[in-house]
Amino acid sequence: MKNENVKKRLKTVEGHLRGIERMVEEEAYCIDIIRQIQAVQAALNKVNAIILEEHLSSCVITAVRGDDPDERERVLNEISSVFDAANKI
Amino acid sequence: MKNENVKKRLKTVEGHLRGIERMVEEEAYCIDIIRQIQAVQAALNKVNAIILEEHLSSCVITAVRGDDPDERERVLNEISSVFDAANKI
Amino acid sequence: MKNENVKKRLKTVEGHLRGIERMVEEEAYCIDIIRQIQAVQAALNKVNAIILEEHLSSCVITAVRGDDPDERERVLNEISSVFDAANKI
Amino acid sequence: MKNENVKKRLKTVEGHLRGIERMVEEEAYCIDIIRQIQAVQAALNKVNAIILEEHLSSCVITAVRGDDPDERERVLNEISSVFDAANKI
Repeated sequence: MKNENVKKRLKTVEGHLRGIERMVEEEAYCIDIIRQIQAVQAALNKVNAIILEEHLSSCVITAVRGDDPDERERVLNEISSVFDAANKI
Repeated sequence: MKNENVKKRLKTVEGHLRGIERMVEEEAYCIDIIRQIQAVQAALNKVNAIILEEHLSSCVITAVRGDDPDERERVLNEISSVFDAANKI
Repeated sequence: MKNENVKKRLKTVEGHLRGIERMVEEEAYCIDIIRQIQAVQAALNKVNAIILEEHLSSCVITAVRGDDPDERERVLNEISSVFDAANKI
Repeated sequence: MKNENVKKRLKTVEGHLRGIERMVEEEAYCIDIIRQIQAVQAALNKVNAIILEEHLSSCVITAVRGDDPDERERVLNEISSVFDAANKI
């Protein structure tokens, strides 16, 4: 997928992360660092949500409407597995 | 959906939860109670995964292969929204 | 720990869970069931937060102010382990 | 806090994140991108766990053993709030 919104958000997260590295370097207070890392994680959740939404409205529709039952199953299993993984992080 | 596996798992969770209520009643150690509640939450994640998998392989396929684009969109938006919510609990 | 607020909340969760079992029995829509289970999980997060807060302001203070360094370490390691587990559900 | 282990891990995460940006640039498969982002989130959970552990065994012990009840309460409330936030991402 190629998505300018996603790219911009990942760039922002990268900048945020570099800021956190500086905080560690400058011996900032632990709890402040944890909170910033949690903010990064929330931002990454948002990125995942955007990618999933795009995926559902393109690849998934194509596969499910297509004639290949294996491909259909594969694509739907991926959704399940990504959902499972989301629950474990 | 009607799923004996899901029903049995929910019954087990209910029993587990009653056990936790007894622990609170008997003034068990806080951390032990938290760990049991976390076990219940993991069990509920598993139930959600099972339901989602069944949903993907039935309703979602029907809607996406159907002729109604609004229904298709509705069903796919639901997947996104459930994924978003999973990230927030 | 003995906490009427926690007990009441767990009772409410138990009732909520029985409602979800009925939904499954009556073949409710998958996504509606998943949403209700997610609401139960959020309610259990709240219960865990309450128990942890009470634990921090009682047992943890006692252990950390006490004279036994092993006990102190044990109690603080428990906090870490519960935090880790929370990240994995 | 100044912790070489934490700094190294954050550097690694930053590299991982840049790899993901390249994947988006090169239009990699959505699900593969989501999985890499989930791996980053898991790595950040680990960093948070390490920071919290260090915090518990230093600042928290100092505050709880200290003579200032307000400071004690503040430090313990922070633990609760970080735990709450962890449950919401």
